[in-house]
Amino acid sequence: MNFKTQFFEDYQIGHHRETLGRTITETDIVMHAGQTGDFFPHHMDTEWCKTQPFKKRIAHGTLTFSIAIGMTATEINPEAFSKGYDRLRFIKPVFIGDTIRVIVTINEKKESNKPHLGQINEHVEVFNQNDDIVMVCDHILLVNKKNHS
Amino acid sequence: MNFKTQFFEDYQIGHHRETLGRTITETDIVMHAGQTGDFFPHHMDTEWCKTQPFKKRIAHGTLTFSIAIGMTATEINPEAFSKGYDRLRFIKPVFIGDTIRVIVTINEKKESNKPHLGQINEHVEVFNQNDDIVMVCDHILLVNKKNHS
Amino acid sequence: MNFKTQFFEDYQIGHHRETLGRTITETDIVMHAGQTGDFFPHHMDTEWCKTQPFKKRIAHGTLTFSIAIGMTATEINPEAFSKGYDRLRFIKPVFIGDTIRVIVTINEKKESNKPHLGQINEHVEVFNQNDDIVMVCDHILLVNKKNHS
Amino acid sequence: MNFKTQFFEDYQIGHHRETLGRTITETDIVMHAGQTGDFFPHHMDTEWCKTQPFKKRIAHGTLTFSIAIGMTATEINPEAFSKGYDRLRFIKPVFIGDTIRVIVTINEKKESNKPHLGQINEHVEVFNQNDDIVMVCDHILLVNKKNHS
Amino acid sequence: MNFKTQFFEDYQIGHHRETLGRTITETDIVMHAGQTGDFFPHHMDTEWCKTQPFKKRIAHGTLTFSIAIGMTATEINPEAFSKGYDRLRFIKPVFIGDTIRVIVTINEKKESNKPHLGQINEHVEVFNQNDDIVMVCDHILLVNKKNHS
Amino acid sequence: MNFKTQFFEDYQIGHHRETLGRTITETDIVMHAGQTGDFFPHHMDTEWCKTQPFKKRIAHGTLTFSIAIGMTATEINPEAFSKGYDRLRFIKPVFIGDTIRVIVTINEKKESNKPHLGQINEHVEVFNQNDDIVMVCDHILLVNKKNHS
Repeated sequence: MNFKTQFFEDYQIGHHRETLGRTITETDIVMHAGQTGDFFPHHMDTEWCKTQPFKKRIAHGTLTFSIAIGMTATEINPEAFSKGYDRLRFIKPVFIGDTIRVIVTINEKKESNKPHLGQINEHVEVFNQNDDIVMVCDHILLVNKKNHS
Repeated sequence: MNFKTQFFEDYQIGHHRETLGRTITETDIVMHAGQTGDFFPHHMDTEWCKTQPFKKRIAHGTLTFSIAIGMTATEINPEAFSKGYDRLRFIKPVFIGDTIRVIVTINEKKESNKPHLGQINEHVEVFNQNDDIVMVCDHILLVNKKNHS
Repeated sequence: MNFKTQFFEDYQIGHHRETLGRTITETDIVMHAGQTGDFFPHHMDTEWCKTQPFKKRIAHGTLTFSIAIGMTATEINPEAFSKGYDRLRFIKPVFIGDTIRVIVTINEKKESNKPHLGQINEHVEVFNQNDDIVMVCDHILLVNKKNHS
Repeated sequence: MNFKTQFFEDYQIGHHRETLGRTITETDIVMHAGQTGDFFPHHMDTEWCKTQPFKKRIAHGTLTFSIAIGMTATEINPEAFSKGYDRLRFIKPVFIGDTIRVIVTINEKKESNKPHLGQINEHVEVFNQNDDIVMVCDHILLVNKKNHS
Repeated sequence: MNFKTQFFEDYQIGHHRETLGRTITETDIVMHAGQTGDFFPHHMDTEWCKTQPFKKRIAHGTLTFSIAIGMTATEINPEAFSKGYDRLRFIKPVFIGDTIRVIVTINEKKESNKPHLGQINEHVEVFNQNDDIVMVCDHILLVNKKNHS
Repeated sequence: MNFKTQFFEDYQIGHHRETLGRTITETDIVMHAGQTGDFFPHHMDTEWCKTQPFKKRIAHGTLTFSIAIGMTATEINPEAFSKGYDRLRFIKPVFIGDTIRVIVTINEKKESNKPHLGQINEHVEVFNQNDDIVMVCDHILLVNKKNHS
C-alpha cells in the first residue's frame, strides 16, 4: 500500500492489473454475518442449504464485493475520488474454499460535469479457481486533470 | 428473520420499509479493514486524516454498503433472487459515531428477459442521524410470477 | 428486528415461536474463547478432546446460550423488561457443525410484587439437527399491564 | 489455566475466589452482537439510547454473563461437570467503560440423585468499579465423590 | 491469571512450566491476517499453497509467536518487566489443525546494568502434536532484587 | 502486495523503505487479547491501569510486533526465507490512539552456513506519532544467490 499520483490524462484505456488469490473461508462468512447482521440461512445453516439447489453455504454478495474491492486496494491516488459503483452483478455463487482473484481494467474515460475532473471507469472482474467469473462491477472514479486549478 | 413468500404481482410500487438505527463504530472499521485487507489511511490513520479535508477517519464505502444492506435483511422471499446492484453512490462520508438507518422503496417493476420472472427495483437510501443521505443504490431482484410453471 | 408493543394481558399461555437454524462453526468457538477468555481444552484442543468421552471439541455453554438467546431477538417489546434466566441446563454437547434452532413457549403468567407489572415465563428449548434437545432455560420477563399508570 | 483435581469432599462451604478486573469495551458489545445476531438498539444505536432512561448503550445480558463466567475459567477440575445455572439476574446495566470483577463463593453442598455424585452450588457475583453488584447467578456443579467407583 | 510476586533471587535456573495445548485453526489465521494486514498467499490462498513445497496454508510467524507467548501469560509478577525477545526462530511450519503447547524454562540469571535489577532469561519452546519443536525464543526479563530501594 | 524477485546480490546495505501510518485502537487490543488469551490487566483493566505509572491501557508487545511486521508485508520475494528475529525490544509503551509507522533498513549482509544462501539483516524500527521509537528488532532473511544451483 502506497501513494501514487495519477492524473486523468495518465489513465490508459485497456490498462489492467491483477491481484493475487484469496481463499474465502467459513471464518469470512461468519464474520461478515456478524458485521452486517445478515444471518440468512443461505450463509449460516448447512442443513437448510442441503435442501437448496446450491447445496452448500454461499458467501454473502456483500462479502464477495467487499473482499474483491479490498484486494484491489493497493495504490492510493490522491488525485482520484471514488464516486461509486455501477452494474454490480453476482454471476455465480462463491462457496467456502473457493479462491478468488480480481482483474481491474480501465475501460472508459470521459468528461464529467465539472471541467477540472474526468471520469474513469474501472471494470472489475472476480474469478474463482476454475476461471469462472463470479462477480463483476464498474468502479467509477472522478480524477483531477493536470494543470487545472 | 423469517420466510415470507412474495410473487412478482405482490410487490407494490411505492411500498417502503424503514430499519431501526445502528451506530457505526471504530470496531466496525477496524474489523472491516481486517476482513477486506483495505488498510488505507482514510480509515486507519488518525494523524493523516487530520491533514485531510474530512479531518477524521471515515468508513469504507464497502462497509457502509455491507452494513446498510445487512440491516435490510429481515425477510427471506423464496420466490426472489438478487441479481445485483446499480447506481451505488457514496454521497457523504460516514464517520465513527454516526448512526445510520435505511429506507427501502419499491420504485420499479418490469418484465425480465425470462417470461416467468419479473424484475423489481428496490431503491435503497441510507441516512445518518442528521437525516442527510449518505449512500444510495438500487437493488435489482428477479421474482417469480404466480401461476407460471 | 422491529418494535412490537405487547402488554402483560396480550401474552397467551402456550403461544410459541420458532427460529430458523444456525450452524455452530469452529469460528464461533474460537471467537467466543477470545471474547470470554475461556480457552479450556474442551473447546480449543483437538488432541486432548480425542482422549475424552465426547471425542471432539464442544461449544462453550455460554456460547450456546448466547447464540440461542440471540436467535430469538427479533421483536423488541418496549413494555417488557428482562429480569433474568432460571433453570439453564446444558443437556447434550453442541459440536462444531451442529445446527441449532430454538423454540420459545409462553408457559407461565403470574403477578409480580409490583401491581403494575406481571411476570411472564418464556420457556426456551434449543434443538440440534437430530431434534435432540441440547439446552433449555426459562426467560423471565416483567411486563407492564394495560391501563396502569 | 491448569488442571486441579477436587472431589466433592474437597469443596468447602464459604470458600471464595475473586478474579482480576476487566473493562467492558465498545468492541466487546459490537463483537457480541456479531456473534449472537442481537443488534437491538439498546446495544447498537447511540441516538435511540439517548431517548431512554439509561441514556447510553448497555451490554447484552448474555455478554456480561459470558465474560463473567469466562473470567472464572482458571482451573479445570476433571472430577466436576457443569449442570447449568440458576437464578441468573441482571441487577444493574453494564455500560461501555465499566470494569467488572467476579467473586465466586461455594454456598451449598448436597446429595444429587446419583450416589457417586454430589451437587455443589457456586454463587457468582459480578461487581462494577463502584462495587455495585450488576449480575448474580448460581453455577451448579456435579462432582465425583472420593472412593466411589 | 493472578498476581504472584517473585524477586530476582526467587527465580531458579532449570525451573520450567508447561502449558496445556491449543489447536491452531483457520479462524486464527484469517483473524491474524485481519489484525496485521498480512494477507500473503502462504496464509490465505489454498490454490497457490498447493504449488509450494509445504502444500498447505501455514500460520504467520507472528501468529505462532503471539499465541505461544499468550499461552504462557498466566502469572503476573509485579516485580518483573519484559525487556524483549532474542533468538526467535521458526523451525517448522505450523499448519491449520496443529496443536501447540509451550514449555518455558529459566535458563540464565545475570546482572543487568542497573544494580537493583537482575536479568532473567526464559527459554520458550513451542511443540506441535508430534513433539516437534516448531518455534523457540528467549524472553528477557528485568526483575527487581529483594531489599533494594 | 505482489511478487518481486530479489537475489542476495540485489540487496543493498542502507536501502530502506517506510510504511504509511496506522492508529492502534482499543479494538486491536481487545482482539489481540482474544486471539492470544493474554488478558493481563495492563491491556484490559482501565481501573487498575490508573494505579500504575503508565496510567492507561497499553498494547501487548506481541500486538505491536505483529502489526508492525504486518505493515511491512508488501512484497513477496520468492527467493527469500524468514529465519526469525533478533534483538526485539519494546522501548516505549504504545497506547490506544497512538499512530505507528515502520522503517525497515538493510543493515547487514553476510554468508550463511550454506553456500547457496546469503543472510540479510533487516533492521526494523517502529515510531509513534511523536517520532519516538517504540520498538525495534532485526529480521533475519536467508536469500538465494544468483546462478547457484
